Amino acid sequence: MNKKDIAVNKLKSLGDIILEDVHQNNVPAIKVPSRGTSNIVYDTDKRYYVLGDRYGKRSLGNVKQITKIAQMVYVANFCKDLVRRGKTATLREMYYVSEGWDVDFGDQQESNIVGEDLEVTLGMTREDLGLMPEEDGASVYGNITFQDDDVEINALRAGKSGYTISPTIDEVDFVDHDVRRVIAVETMGMFHRMVQENAYKKFDSLIVGLKGQAARATRRFLKRVNEELNLPVYICNDGDPWGFHIAMVIISGSAKLAHVNHQLATPDAKFLGVTASDIINYDLPTDPLKDIDVLRLKELSKDPRYKDEAWQMEIKKMLKIGKKAEQQSFSKYGLEYVVDTYLPEKLESME
Amino acid sequence: MNKKDIAVNKLKSLGDIILEDVHQNNVPAIKVPSRGTSNIVYDTDKRYYVLGDRYGKRSLGNVKQITKIAQMVYVANFCKDLVRRGKTATLREMYYVSEGWDVDFGDQQESNIVGEDLEVTLGMTREDLGLMPEEDGASVYGNITFQDDDVEINALRAGKSGYTISPTIDEVDFVDHDVRRVIAVETMGMFHRMVQENAYKKFDSLIVGLKGQAARATRRFLKRVNEELNLPVYICNDGDPWGFHIAMVIISGSAKLAHVNHQLATPDAKFLGVTASDIINYDLPTDPLKDIDVLRLKELSKDPRYKDEAWQMEIKKMLKIGKKAEQQSFSKYGLEYVVDTYLPEKLESME
Repeated sequence: MNKKDIAVNKLKSLGDIILEDVHQNNVPAIKVPSRGTSNIVYDTDKRYYVLGDRYGKRSLGNVKQITKIAQMVYVANFCKDLVRRGKTATLREMYYVSEGWDVDFGDQQESNIVGEDLEVTLGMTREDLGLMPEEDGASVYGNITFQDDDVEINALRAGKSGYTISPTIDEVDFVDHDVRRVIAVETMGMFHRMVQENAYKKFDSLIVGLKGQAARATRRFLKRVNEELNLPVYICNDGDPWGFHIAMVIISGSAKLAHVNHQLATPDAKFLGVTASDIINYDLPTDPLKDIDVLRLKELSKDPRYKDEAWQMEIKKMLKIGKKAEQQSFSKYGLEYVVDTYLPEKLESME
Repeated sequence: MNKKDIAVNKLKSLGDIILEDVHQNNVPAIKVPSRGTSNIVYDTDKRYYVLGDRYGKRSLGNVKQITKIAQMVYVANFCKDLVRRGKTATLREMYYVSEGWDVDFGDQQESNIVGEDLEVTLGMTREDLGLMPEEDGASVYGNITFQDDDVEINALRAGKSGYTISPTIDEVDFVDHDVRRVIAVETMGMFHRMVQENAYKKFDSLIVGLKGQAARATRRFLKRVNEELNLPVYICNDGDPWGFHIAMVIISGSAKLAHVNHQLATPDAKFLGVTASDIINYDLPTDPLKDIDVLRLKELSKDPRYKDEAWQMEIKKMLKIGKKAEQQSFSKYGLEYVVDTYLPEKLESME
């Protein structure tokens, strides 16, 4: 059964639960796993956040919950229609479409939450249900070939800015590749540097330009290349708490998306740099940590995702030196240095 | 002579001016056109902002200007090296590279300004000089074929998110196309809607996803397709002052970039909507104007770029109804409505 059929079946089964209750003269009710903070657990085996066992019950017997159930049924029906017709919609579009429904939403926040309710109840991502994020994912450059509907695309032949991961990345098949690893970088400035210095050849690598915090589509892509193609994933970001955390969300997922981390997190992805040690060892140009950086680093040091020794040591070191450094600061030694010297040394130490 | 040779020659001529002064025992000086507000003029014939005739003189005879001239020479030399080697760098990278120079910069703001000085003095964009913005441009979908180095790319075959306009768009050639117009939309949500509803076929059109305020590369691309391929360009944004202005910067350029508007502005591009009239005629879901929207609309009404009657009328109308509407609000009538009904009606009225 393909993903599309699974989605339609799951959506239909939601309706069946309600219908069955009606036929048996029971008050219809739906179990919705709780997304409250107390039900979000860091799973040390899986190495990402998951939801615990708690759930809430939405019952038509509860006056306060009637609207919520009706909204959920409408959204589910809308999604079923999308998936069947092979279409997608943004959450914003769904919100506007809902103006024509018999139940409506106070604002988009309310309809977004019902979308999440559906994700968590069915155990599928909203992309599987046809509800797409607005934002595109990262740029990919390197020798990999995708099949997207009837089009075959090689990511060396999509232009200097590479192949853009679209929100529908799960419908894209990996046809062929000739790379041994994936290097993801935080900024498009660094992405273009890597392309220009032939880093994709030098390291037999895909280059992925994250554009800051990785979009859901990017996380899904990195998980897929890591698991389906067995490619190691390295992440190279700015050397500051924000760069650390962009990497960590790729590796161990976010608490907010605990219910879909099993589809988004790539626990085997590795943070390559820029570390506090790199700042010292490579004598990089730095900026002093701001109060908010210090605060954030202290938060990270208590976060279960950062519990391993290497992270703890790097966070402490950064707090001690009181400095941060950007990816592009390697240019101090010339534009080529990051590809000719830094990355080979770091990759060797990690592989 | 190609752009690369022109850039190298212009950069060399800057050095020649200084050398000649030295040889003739004059105090070396460089004329830099002024970018001050009083020298930025709206040119009603060209229909965009240009620089006036005023210029400043940077002289080695003035102690305060010695550093500035030295910085400019170093930056020019860096650019000459980039262009000759067929490389590019971001302003951020240049700032870090400058750490190895005999003159340095207090912060990146200072080195950015010297980059602009060079643009305005030589009458070339910084992209021509190898200094690239970080950000990529818009996404393009539709039947156009590009030549980028040795790679030929058709924008129907680059993936669902289309071909990404890279900062080096001026090095890309237009090989072939089979479209009659270009429709640029503000959000990627609308871009994906247009692709999904086959708007590129229906309107024989390129679809361009602007991603908000258009990047320099996007503006350059739109100007080139408009002038080199004679394709009319239509812009469809949110119906609010910000959507208006995203369109206007594409059409008539910004004051800040008056010195390069001749390479970036597309005065024949047309704003298609969403207008205040559309909000009324299509009875769109709206949000009330916020104070900041009202303030901005009043500013726009006094801006010379908005002086024509149609704009003045639409701004007044929006202030009168006190409402704004997003592109995606057409979904009220179903996901297909914007492509099946709104766009055909608007295009017919404009063509």
